[in-house]
Amino acid sequence: MFDFQLLKKSKKSRARLGLLKTPHGQIKTPAFITVGTKGTVKSLTPQDLDAIGTQMVFINTYHIVLSPGVDVIEKAGGIHTFSGIDTPIITDSGGFQVFSLARNSKVGTKHKNELNSEEQPPHFVAITDDGVEFRSPRDGEMFYFTPEFSIDAQRRIGADFAVAFDECLYYGADYKKTEKSLRRTHDWAQRSLQVHKVQSQKSIKQEMYGVIQGGLYEDLRRESVKFISSFPFFGLAIGGVSVGETKKEMRDQIGWVMDELGDDPRPRHLLGIGEFDDVMDAVVMGIDTMDCVIPTRHARMGRFYVVQSPESYGEVDILKQVYKKDFAPIDEICECYTCHHFTRAYLHHLFKQRELLAYRLATIHNLFFMEQLFENIRESI
Amino acid sequence: MFDFQLLKKSKKSRARLGLLKTPHGQIKTPAFITVGTKGTVKSLTPQDLDAIGTQMVFINTYHIVLSPGVDVIEKAGGIHTFSGIDTPIITDSGGFQVFSLARNSKVGTKHKNELNSEEQPPHFVAITDDGVEFRSPRDGEMFYFTPEFSIDAQRRIGADFAVAFDECLYYGADYKKTEKSLRRTHDWAQRSLQVHKVQSQKSIKQEMYGVIQGGLYEDLRRESVKFISSFPFFGLAIGGVSVGETKKEMRDQIGWVMDELGDDPRPRHLLGIGEFDDVMDAVVMGIDTMDCVIPTRHARMGRFYVVQSPESYGEVDILKQVYKKDFAPIDEICECYTCHHFTRAYLHHLFKQRELLAYRLATIHNLFFMEQLFENIRESI
Repeated sequence: MFDFQLLKKSKKSRARLGLLKTPHGQIKTPAFITVGTKGTVKSLTPQDLDAIGTQMVFINTYHIVLSPGVDVIEKAGGIHTFSGIDTPIITDSGGFQVFSLARNSKVGTKHKNELNSEEQPPHFVAITDDGVEFRSPRDGEMFYFTPEFSIDAQRRIGADFAVAFDECLYYGADYKKTEKSLRRTHDWAQRSLQVHKVQSQKSIKQEMYGVIQGGLYEDLRRESVKFISSFPFFGLAIGGVSVGETKKEMRDQIGWVMDELGDDPRPRHLLGIGEFDDVMDAVVMGIDTMDCVIPTRHARMGRFYVVQSPESYGEVDILKQVYKKDFAPIDEICECYTCHHFTRAYLHHLFKQRELLAYRLATIHNLFFMEQLFENIRESI
Repeated sequence: MFDFQLLKKSKKSRARLGLLKTPHGQIKTPAFITVGTKGTVKSLTPQDLDAIGTQMVFINTYHIVLSPGVDVIEKAGGIHTFSGIDTPIITDSGGFQVFSLARNSKVGTKHKNELNSEEQPPHFVAITDDGVEFRSPRDGEMFYFTPEFSIDAQRRIGADFAVAFDECLYYGADYKKTEKSLRRTHDWAQRSLQVHKVQSQKSIKQEMYGVIQGGLYEDLRRESVKFISSFPFFGLAIGGVSVGETKKEMRDQIGWVMDELGDDPRPRHLLGIGEFDDVMDAVVMGIDTMDCVIPTRHARMGRFYVVQSPESYGEVDILKQVYKKDFAPIDEICECYTCHHFTRAYLHHLFKQRELLAYRLATIHNLFFMEQLFENIRESI
C-alpha cells in the first residue's frame, strides 16, 4: 500500500526521480509539499487543490492538538474526512512549534507539579528528557508533548505519514548543547518508532519518517544519519536546517546528510524549505520532497511568483502602484485559474482593498507555480 | 437586447413571475441580487457564482469611484471584464453611501472653495441642490457627486443597469424635510435621465432605473411613484425603505408604492432588503428583484441559513460550542458545495481559527440558499 520507487538517478547530480505511493494516491518526486497548517490550505478548498495539482499536504500536529483537538479529528474519521482534503497528507511531530515556543518563552526543567504558581509564566515551557510541557498561548491549557503523545496524536489524526518526535534546537547552539540535544532526539526517535510498531500491529495505515538532526556540526549530522537510518523508518526527514542558518550553512548540512545517506533508497524529506534557490539546490543534492509556508504566506502578502528569466524566479509585489492600470495577467503563459481570468490591475485592487478573494487568487497562482516548477524539475532529471 | 416580460401574475397576491433580459443573460424574477460591493462578491470567484447559480450582481458606484477609480474600470473594458463576473450587473448611484457618510459627518451647505481650512473636518459633506461634495474617509481626496457625475461614472463602469442619482434621507426626517428632499430627488431623476438619453444616442448598452423616495409619508410616496413612473425609465427602484424603519413602516411604504404603481409592467427593484420575512412579503407585494448584503455579511459572521420548518427560515451560529463535534452538514438536503463536502465541526473549527476558507464556505451556502429560496418562490407563483 505504501511504497517508494526510485525511477531514475540524474547523471549530472544526486537528483533522483521517484514515485511515492500511499493509500490516498501517488506523488511524483521530487515534489513540493503544500502546507495546510490547521487542516486547511489557507483560503483554498480541496477542489482548488485538485485544480492546482497539489500532490501532498503537510499539516501541523501542534496546531491540531490545540484546536480543534485530536479527539474531534478522530471522531470525524481522520484528517482526510474532516478537512475534505483527498491528497496524501503528512503530519509533523509538533516538535518544531513546541521548541519555537520555548525559544520565545521562559524555559525551565521542572514539570508543572514541581512548580509553584509564581513560577508559571503564560508560555512556560519545561523541557526534560521525557518530553516538553507547555502552557498554550491561546487559553492557558497545559500540554505535555512526548514521543508517545505525539505519535499517538498523529495516529489519531490519521495522515498517511507521521514524523518522529524530535528536539528542534535553536540556531547557533554550541557543540555541547547540540550533542546533548541529539542524544535526546535519537532516544525520542526510538520511542516514537516503538509506539508506531505497536500501531502497525493493529494495521493502522500510516508510515513514519525519522528525523535527522545535528545542527551545524558535521560529525553530529553524520552520526545522526547513521543512527536514524539504522532504524526501519519508512522515510527520513532532515530537521533543523531552516532555523535561521545562512544559505551556506544550510547547504553544508544537507550535503553532509546526503553524502552519509549515499544510496539509501528511502524517501528523503527536507523540513521547512521552500525558497527558489534552496529548492533547486535541495533537489540537486538528492532531496525527494520538501514543505514550506513561503509560497502560501507570500501569496497572502501579494507577492506573486514569476519567471524572471530561464531558471531565475522572482516575485511581483502586486501592491505596487505601477500595477494599478496593468491589464496583463501576472504571467501570460501561466495556466492557473488566476492568470487565466484576472489582470494585475484587478489583483492590485483586491489587495489594496484587502478583499478576501485576493488571498485566494494569489495562493492559487503561487501553488500552481510551485507544482509547475517541480514538474519542470522532474522533466529535467 | 434589454427586455422585461411578465410571464404570470399570482391569483393569490400581487406576486409576479417575469424574465429580465440583458446582454449578459436572463434573470428569472422574482430574483435575489447578490451584492459585490467593490467589484467582488466577498471571497468568491466568478466560478463560484456560476456554481451557486447567482443571477445578477449589485456593485456600489461609490466604492468603485473611490478605489480603484472609474478610469481603471473603463480602461479595463468595463466592470465585467475587470472583475471577471459574467452575470448581469447593476450599479447603484452612489447616493446611498454618500448620504450615509453625511449622517455620520458634519454636514454643511457650502462647497469646498467657500470654506476655510478650519471648516473642513475629515469627512465633510456639503449637500446642495446641485450635488454632494465630500472628503473621502480613506485618503482625504475630495469628490463631488452630482446626477451627471454618477450617471457618467456608471456608464464608464459599464454595468447592464444604472440607477438614477437620488437623495437617500435619514430615518425619521420630518414631513417638510422629506418633501424638500423629494423635490431634489425628482430633479436629480430628470437630470440623470437626461445624461442617460445622450448616452443612449451613442448606443451605450445600458438601461436605467429611476428611484422612488418619499420617506414615511404616504402622499409623498404616491407622488414620487406618479412622478418617477411618468418618465421612460427601464425599471423602477424603491429607495429609503431599508434605512432603520420598523417592519410595519417598511411594509406600509412598499404597499403604497405598489398600490400606486398598479399594473405598470416595468421591473421593480427594492433597494437594500434581504431578511427572510421582508423578502417573502416584498414578493407578495409585487417586487421583482431585491439586493442585500445580509446573506453574505451574516455568512462572514458564521451565521448559516437553514430551514427551520416549512416556510420558516433561520440561522445556525456555527461558532457555538455545540457544533464542535457535530459531524452533520449544515443542511442534509442542501446541494451546495459546502454542505456536500463539509461538516458543522469543520466549519466550527475554521471559524474559531478565523481561517480564510471559513468565510468562503459560508458565503457559498448562504447565497445558494437564497437562490434556492427564490427558485421555490418562483415555483409557488
